[in-house]
Formats: sequence, C-alpha cells, structure tokens
Amino acid sequence: MAALQNPKRKIKRLVLSKSKSQNLDDEARDIINSFGSIEIVPPDQLHALLPENAIHQGIALQANPLHAYDIEDIPKLTENQSSTSVAVLDQVTDPHNVGAILRSAAAFGISAVIIPDRHSPPITGVLARSASGAVETVPLIRVNNLARALDKLEEFGFWRIGMDGSAEQELDDAVKGAAKVALILGSEGKGLRRLTAEKCDLMGKLPISSQIESLNVSNAAAIAFYEMARRLGKQ
Amino acid sequence: MAALQNPKRKIKRLVLSKSKSQNLDDEARDIINSFGSIEIVPPDQLHALLPENAIHQGIALQANPLHAYDIEDIPKLTENQSSTSVAVLDQVTDPHNVGAILRSAAAFGISAVIIPDRHSPPITGVLARSASGAVETVPLIRVNNLARALDKLEEFGFWRIGMDGSAEQELDDAVKGAAKVALILGSEGKGLRRLTAEKCDLMGKLPISSQIESLNVSNAAAIAFYEMARRLGKQ
Repeated sequence: MAALQNPKRKIKRLVLSKSKSQNLDDEARDIINSFGSIEIVPPDQLHALLPENAIHQGIALQANPLHAYDIEDIPKLTENQSSTSVAVLDQVTDPHNVGAILRSAAAFGISAVIIPDRHSPPITGVLARSASGAVETVPLIRVNNLARALDKLEEFGFWRIGMDGSAEQELDDAVKGAAKVALILGSEGKGLRRLTAEKCDLMGKLPISSQIESLNVSNAAAIAFYEMARRLGKQ
Repeated sequence: MAALQNPKRKIKRLVLSKSKSQNLDDEARDIINSFGSIEIVPPDQLHALLPENAIHQGIALQANPLHAYDIEDIPKLTENQSSTSVAVLDQVTDPHNVGAILRSAAAFGISAVIIPDRHSPPITGVLARSASGAVETVPLIRVNNLARALDKLEEFGFWRIGMDGSAEQELDDAVKGAAKVALILGSEGKGLRRLTAEKCDLMGKLPISSQIESLNVSNAAAIAFYEMARRLGKQ
C-alpha cells in the first residue's frame, strides 16, 4: 500500500489473488483501484511470481527501484530544516533490524539512513516487510566507504555522535546544542568498529541498567530517534 | 552465561563442544569454571542434545525452569520501590518481540512482564535468545485471564496505561504523577483488544509521524520503558 501511494515509485505490475481481491478493506480497495491495470490470478500463479518461501498477503507488486540517493544528496535532503538527524549503521546485518530501524526513522523524522554497501542486506523481502512501508519514505543511502561518508557528514556540518554503552555522557546530553546530528550505531555484538569510533565527535549512551549488557540495536535506535524528535519538539 | 550466573537457576548439566571449550574469553571461562562438572563432547553429540535447527554457540545447558511468578506476587516483587512499572503484553505472539521486550525491561528496570498464557510463546529457544539473558532477571508472569490480571493490578494501586496510536495524550503526559504504572501493549496489527482497552485507566501514544502507522511493538516498548526510567530519574 505504501509503494502504491508513493508517487516516486514506478509500478509495472499489480497482481492479486482472487480471495484477496474479494477481501480488501475500504482503504486498500481505494488505493488499489487507483492503479490502472490489476491482474487477478489463482494462488499458485501468485506464488510463482514471488521468491521461494516469501511471506505475502495475496498481493504482488513489480516495481522499479526508487532513485538511489548518494551521500552527496544529504545537504539537499535536509535543506530548510532548522534541525536535522541522520542515522549511520555500522555493520548492522540483520534485515529485520535494518527494516525496523527504517520504520522508526520514518516515525521520528530521521532524514536518511546510511549503511555500508558491503555486509548490508538488500532493500527487498524481509527488510522491506520489517520496514512496514518506510522504504518508501526514508532514503536509505548505501556507501562504499563508511569512514569517508563520516568525513562528508562532518563537511556538511553534522555532529557525529557514536552510540556506545561505555560512553561517559548520556545521549541527550551529548546532542545538546547540535543542530545537525548523525547518530552512529554499531553491530550488537561488537559495537562500533575502531575506525568508525575514531570518526565520531562524541559518544553517547542510553541510561541502561548494569543488569544487561546492551539493547537490541533496533530498540536502541528507536530510543535514540525518539530523543532526536523530542529535542526538536522542545525548541 | 546469564543462566550460570543466576543463583536462582538450578543447573543440571553443562555441555561444551571441544572447540568452544578451547575458545572461551576470560569472563566466560571464569563463569564456566565456577560450575562443577563440565562435559566436553564432539559437535554432533552437542547437536543431538538440542532441538532441531537450534542456533547455538557450542554450549548447551540443562536447567530447571525458574520459579513461576503469579500475578499475586506483584506487590512483593515491587515492595520498597517508590515508583514501579510493569508491562502487560496483549497478544504479542512473536518470540523475537517478547524476547526483545524482556531485554529492554531489564535495561530500564521494569519490575515484571505479564502475558496471557494462551497465544504467548514459551520461554525457551528464540525468546530466550532474543532476551539476551533477561529471562534470568525479569519475572515473566503468565496469566490465564488478562482482564482479571488488569483488575488485580488496579487493586494493587497501578495506573493502567494502554499504548494506543490514536490516544489523545502522549505517554509522558499520561503517566505524570502515577507512582505505579502498568503499561499495556497490544499486537502490532490490531492494537489492544476492546476488552483490554476498557480496563485501561488512560491511553497514551508515542509522538510518531503521520507518515507511518505504528512502530514495531518491541521498539514501542523500548521507548515506553525508557520514558518510565527517565521519569524516575527526574524524581
């Protein structure tokens, strides 16, 4: 539904199973009817169009990829915003986590999510489903070299705040007064890589109990994004 | 490691693969050595002890279940706390989500997580792994009847705050002044059931953008728990 409603998404085919076409809620029916040519097919034909073991709800969409943004697009993506946050994911490889992080980014107005091209999951299947429509609204920027991307973010005027459980400051103190914030999150097991940590201007932690070592990375991201949104609300 | 360090957890057997036993970090080695009888076996024997397709790291533990707390234990579990929060999950069925919610509960000092016995995943495998040790520290209370549990919480002096995207108040306003808070979270697709919603004293929402319908339930829980901890910090 999010893809169909995205004016920037070029749709080639829209295929529904017969039972799905008869059981759409009003909102979905309106969205689907606004698309010209709908194909209604038996379930096995729908299955055949999808990757093996794909979990679907009786609808398949063939679409062109969205425009791939580049790190150089960040100033344009964030222009006219008095405060801006972007997120940088260092080696977050689980597509459920990357998807959930995109979803939270959409929820709290994060302008872009930046990931290294290598070791990051493709923007399809599990990731897109976990993002629950947010792949349509939050630019996901793939970069070849994360260290260079962090240099670029500095050039663009961003404070680069690394999320690190052993930081001295709490996140909300670390971001105080920064108009442009790049939040950098590492993998759950290992945290930020040394090279990535060295590029950070400051480190911030979430105030978690000593009972537990860390949060799930998508949960840590959700809290950090919420803090960013709260910060804007307070201005 | 969390299970081995939990004095309340009765361990029956501890089995390691040979390669794991040779590649323990210092902390893990100390914890494991503190347990009396360690069995070291070839990998296929270790596999045979575990459920099919179990993801493991070369260690298997046979342990008794922890003491099963009951809703009647809540006053005892929360005594001597000036402020207390518990979480109630209404039809959150994905074990990854329940596990991540337990982990965040441990991180932010939530005193207990209450789930209906039916439709809730068992406290093993995926759930325990997603909880990352938090099953050892956060009481997970299974109840037969959620509505009755919510009545009990009222008796015990809890404000029952339902998380609902269409609430008028934001969560941090809704909880203001309440010393004991029960946060009630529904399933992602459907939210709170009518009967559950009717038992809530107030509804609270997170300030998310209209671009997106909802957050992943474990992400919403993480933010709500963080708010509860922040609230205590401010006192």
